[in-house]
Amino acid sequence: SVNPDLASERQTASFSVEKLTALLDGDAEQTRIRRAVVEAIESDPVFSRENQYFQTQNERYEAAVKKAVHLQKKMHEMGWTENGPEYKYIYRALSGDVAFLLHRVFMRSISVLGSDKQIAKWIPLATQHKLIGSYAQTELGHGTYLQGLETTAVFDTATQEFILNTPKISAMKWWPGDMGRSATHTVVFAQLYVHGKCYGIHPFIVQIRSLQDHSLCPGITAGDIGPKMNFEHIDNGYLLLKNVRIPRENMLSKFCEVRPDGSYVRQGSQKINYFTMTTVRISLISDEVLTPLMKACTIAIRYSVVRRQSKLKPGEQEAKILDYQTQQEKLLPQLAAAYAFHFINDYLQELFNRGYREIQRKNFDMLPELHALSSGFKAVITQHCTAGVEICLRACGGHGYSLLSGLPSLYTKILASCIYEGENTILLLQTARFLIKCFMAASAGQPVPPSVTYLAAVKHRKCPAKNKLDFLSPDIYTEAYQHVAVRLTSSTAAKLQDLIQSGVKKHDAWNQCTVQLVQAAKAHCHYIAVKNFAETVEKLETKAGIQKIMKHLCDLFALHGIFSNTGAFLHDGYTSAAQMDMVTASYLDLLAVIRKDAVPLVDAFDFTDKSLNSALGSYDGQVYQRLYEWAQKAPTNQMNPAYEKYLKPLLHNTLSKL
Amino acid sequence: SVNPDLASERQTASFSVEKLTALLDGDAEQTRIRRAVVEAIESDPVFSRENQYFQTQNERYEAAVKKAVHLQKKMHEMGWTENGPEYKYIYRALSGDVAFLLHRVFMRSISVLGSDKQIAKWIPLATQHKLIGSYAQTELGHGTYLQGLETTAVFDTATQEFILNTPKISAMKWWPGDMGRSATHTVVFAQLYVHGKCYGIHPFIVQIRSLQDHSLCPGITAGDIGPKMNFEHIDNGYLLLKNVRIPRENMLSKFCEVRPDGSYVRQGSQKINYFTMTTVRISLISDEVLTPLMKACTIAIRYSVVRRQSKLKPGEQEAKILDYQTQQEKLLPQLAAAYAFHFINDYLQELFNRGYREIQRKNFDMLPELHALSSGFKAVITQHCTAGVEICLRACGGHGYSLLSGLPSLYTKILASCIYEGENTILLLQTARFLIKCFMAASAGQPVPPSVTYLAAVKHRKCPAKNKLDFLSPDIYTEAYQHVAVRLTSSTAAKLQDLIQSGVKKHDAWNQCTVQLVQAAKAHCHYIAVKNFAETVEKLETKAGIQKIMKHLCDLFALHGIFSNTGAFLHDGYTSAAQMDMVTASYLDLLAVIRKDAVPLVDAFDFTDKSLNSALGSYDGQVYQRLYEWAQKAPTNQMNPAYEKYLKPLLHNTLSKL
Repeated sequence: SVNPDLASERQTASFSVEKLTALLDGDAEQTRIRRAVVEAIESDPVFSRENQYFQTQNERYEAAVKKAVHLQKKMHEMGWTENGPEYKYIYRALSGDVAFLLHRVFMRSISVLGSDKQIAKWIPLATQHKLIGSYAQTELGHGTYLQGLETTAVFDTATQEFILNTPKISAMKWWPGDMGRSATHTVVFAQLYVHGKCYGIHPFIVQIRSLQDHSLCPGITAGDIGPKMNFEHIDNGYLLLKNVRIPRENMLSKFCEVRPDGSYVRQGSQKINYFTMTTVRISLISDEVLTPLMKACTIAIRYSVVRRQSKLKPGEQEAKILDYQTQQEKLLPQLAAAYAFHFINDYLQELFNRGYREIQRKNFDMLPELHALSSGFKAVITQHCTAGVEICLRACGGHGYSLLSGLPSLYTKILASCIYEGENTILLLQTARFLIKCFMAASAGQPVPPSVTYLAAVKHRKCPAKNKLDFLSPDIYTEAYQHVAVRLTSSTAAKLQDLIQSGVKKHDAWNQCTVQLVQAAKAHCHYIAVKNFAETVEKLETKAGIQKIMKHLCDLFALHGIFSNTGAFLHDGYTSAAQMDMVTASYLDLLAVIRKDAVPLVDAFDFTDKSLNSALGSYDGQVYQRLYEWAQKAPTNQMNPAYEKYLKPLLHNTLSKL
Repeated sequence: SVNPDLASERQTASFSVEKLTALLDGDAEQTRIRRAVVEAIESDPVFSRENQYFQTQNERYEAAVKKAVHLQKKMHEMGWTENGPEYKYIYRALSGDVAFLLHRVFMRSISVLGSDKQIAKWIPLATQHKLIGSYAQTELGHGTYLQGLETTAVFDTATQEFILNTPKISAMKWWPGDMGRSATHTVVFAQLYVHGKCYGIHPFIVQIRSLQDHSLCPGITAGDIGPKMNFEHIDNGYLLLKNVRIPRENMLSKFCEVRPDGSYVRQGSQKINYFTMTTVRISLISDEVLTPLMKACTIAIRYSVVRRQSKLKPGEQEAKILDYQTQQEKLLPQLAAAYAFHFINDYLQELFNRGYREIQRKNFDMLPELHALSSGFKAVITQHCTAGVEICLRACGGHGYSLLSGLPSLYTKILASCIYEGENTILLLQTARFLIKCFMAASAGQPVPPSVTYLAAVKHRKCPAKNKLDFLSPDIYTEAYQHVAVRLTSSTAAKLQDLIQSGVKKHDAWNQCTVQLVQAAKAHCHYIAVKNFAETVEKLETKAGIQKIMKHLCDLFALHGIFSNTGAFLHDGYTSAAQMDMVTASYLDLLAVIRKDAVPLVDAFDFTDKSLNSALGSYDGQVYQRLYEWAQKAPTNQMNPAYEKYLKPLLHNTLSKL
């Protein structure tokens, strides 16, 4: 039975939840396929995550391996293939709680970086799991800056082998998933040396564990890097190489080859490889970043209509906490952001598909823009969604702090997305570099990529809004965002120029502008996200109430951004103080409007109770019952390890006397 | 041997680290006492936290009980007493990783709420640990709003007993520390009923476990609430009461008593009790909030001069990441905040001591101001420091994400401080209520408490700064903060008045202003923090370079606050856009200045390696070596639970063929 406080929220939905779900999935057929996958996965007890919050790192790892092995069987049984329509839903249905994800990266590396011969040898072995692969790039002392990697691979002409070494502790491979305990092979990135000359970073296939008994191969030291904030199920590992010899054929050689005589040959264009890196950044957004935020919103909003606290009106019963403006102001902007980023993800996917088609025609013109957008949005979306999940957690008070709410693990996992696949600050500076370059080009009248043509159109107009309703006009707010992005880019470009002209060295000048460059890059992405949301809403069909509620969310997303960054909009007087008061008024009004549809809006995300794995977020809203029943199953309720040893002796004196 | 990249940072300190440590401690004698306590605790292996990151919840709990029991012995051995000068350093030296903290709250409740007879009976029993106490207030469905608690205590005149019940699941006690597995007794807060009439919430001493064998008493259901984001060492518990009978004497009756005939008598003033609650909020700031931020700063800043990444100047070696402006902008404001909040903590402590003396003279005039300040600063400091610890964690990239960095556990623990002892939003609204009241009074020419007299002095001047150096003048920035606090308070008061005058009900009007009221309360606290820092700096002795570096930190704290909230200062034109550019310039200049002293400034916090318990933060900066050695000891490196069951069968086919 559904908690009546939750049930009542669903009776007044202003739109069709099922239609919105189909819109989010793409269409109703996708919804059907997704639900079938979810059903198949969740009805299989091997994939259960019910005990997850009670398990140790060893137990989580064991379960993840078990699931990975079972998944192979399941896919065969269900007729699912890696190229089938179901595939993208499988990982999501497992909530990523499965091993051998790096095995897939191992395979992709060989496909992209290997010669045809190497692909023919290794891919079938990997596909049949005759080995378990990993991907060893990051080192203890080296992350983003690949040129700094210190592992060496010296070519020995005499034996036709590469000799791999970890010359010092900071060169030890550190973090590769599946490598700490599972992998038999890995792709090691190392500085290539031939005849004493360094040719830079290259990839090498290295066997690290015996296929007979899984013992470490000669010269290999490897293990698990220990406990982390999340990802307990993954055996992130370390790897130390001491005179490890591998055959010449194990250097992945699609683009570069060392011939038997030691001569080094480059071949083909590596640009497609560069494109792969940007694709990874986009592909992680949906599963690793948006899904967690959508889950957190679902949990926090359902809880907020079930939880009652204090009286809003004297004499009445305690109020649903979602009826408090402050609670709305915490949660509803996160909900709006989840939708905004869902739509920007669609936009990016489309752009990348187009880019891929161009690249296949050997046209690499789109690459700089794609790189800038993928870097910027990876950073902005991971940052925004991580903060959003944290807000949802805190908004649930004490119960949000219990692992059983599901929120802590969503938070500790999504947080990592700010760091992996390019640390966010570094990525934003890459976007900024592109912006500055395009701004200079545009100022000089040269052509620039479509997403930045607006930089050329510097208008010094003032915001034309006359009352608070004007701020519900997408033209008004989109232009305000555009204005801020142009201002921040142009003023930072000017500062940079001034510094250089005043004699500061170029790299110092750049460093002195980086705080502001980061702001400019964020403003650029924020502008594009708002513009894209507004354009998406315009194209929606008007029936079933979908367009109307999406328009509200778009307005909220835009106005929340202004309300939270008033200085950026006030700075040069584009927006006046009086207009900012209108923004605030419209923004606060919107909270009350969207609050009415808050539960239907999270219902549309269509998460099952098992996928939420949360005592607070279940569809029926029976929060307290579930917390109580679940807690009773905790290992901490099975026995008391302190009683015999400490409590009994302590209380012993009391026994006869009290 | 100290990592040379770290050692070099210490050679150029502009001030005496030892003198600054003494200033933070109070004086050199306090430093000596603190170090002696730390030495005694850390040299005792029972108190070791070395394995903490590897332990399960059960293991953490067992260790915490063991430490609590051992601590009694240790205190006796060392001659430490609860009233001695060492006491405040003991908990800090243990990093709070010890059981029976609620036992102390149990004792304090009895001391404050109990009659002399009750104190005489229970305090000696508790002191000698003949029982283990807890404090059962929060319920599954009820937190901050105490009047909403649902547990009942019905007086039975016939037997002279109270009958305690949990009438429904939301009334179950939930969260009390030490109650899930250890406590034998607890103070239960319940609605008192006599002859069918409800007298509201009262405290009752209830025995929950047998002193003989620790089994649950009749009518008691209790256990552990399961896994949480941190506090694994504490057995936060649940408690369900079914017709539990306790003698009439077990209602704590300093202020209210039920006579044998069922008549209800109030006696004395409860105001002192109210004062206790505010004292708790202040007392947690130092150990639970400032210490974690100081530790996080120490870890992140030491790591940032050891870690090198990318090249700042072409041709040179990779740069220390602290040399990047963006890294400085992440970490140095947190360092400045740690100092700012240290000094505001001193201010609050002093104010509370004065308040306590007044209250003992039956003068309760200071109570509203003390309540407003303790609520506001509890919220602002916990919020700010939690965000600061998270920034430190992220600023360390992947290594910050390892539990071995110490940062994840600092974060997951400090996060709870935003929720417990009053949820932050609710506390800020209490401060706001006080501000609005005082603003109205001040506007009407009535006297108001000292901390809010500034609300009366509404000046509509503009900021007089003419160049960026002017923004290093405390008068300039303090007045800017004051202006913002007045503006936000007065404009929200006006909105509230307008709404009410336009016919909106008072409680609805209040709710519609809460987002802005929270802003006003934060601005008030921020202003006082800046003002207090500036005044503190002025009073410091000028020698040994201390005043100079503290002045820099004060400037940074103030300018960072403006830089991060430009809209608040620009809104009504108090600060112009040109002046805001000066703020930005001064702010960024300061980062480079303070960066030079960053390591000495964290060294002055004087944390031992054991207290940091971090592979990244140790005094010698041997980061990589320590990560590697520590990881090897992890349980994940002791055996592979997945090999025999899953990996071997999977790879089996390969064995003969590859």
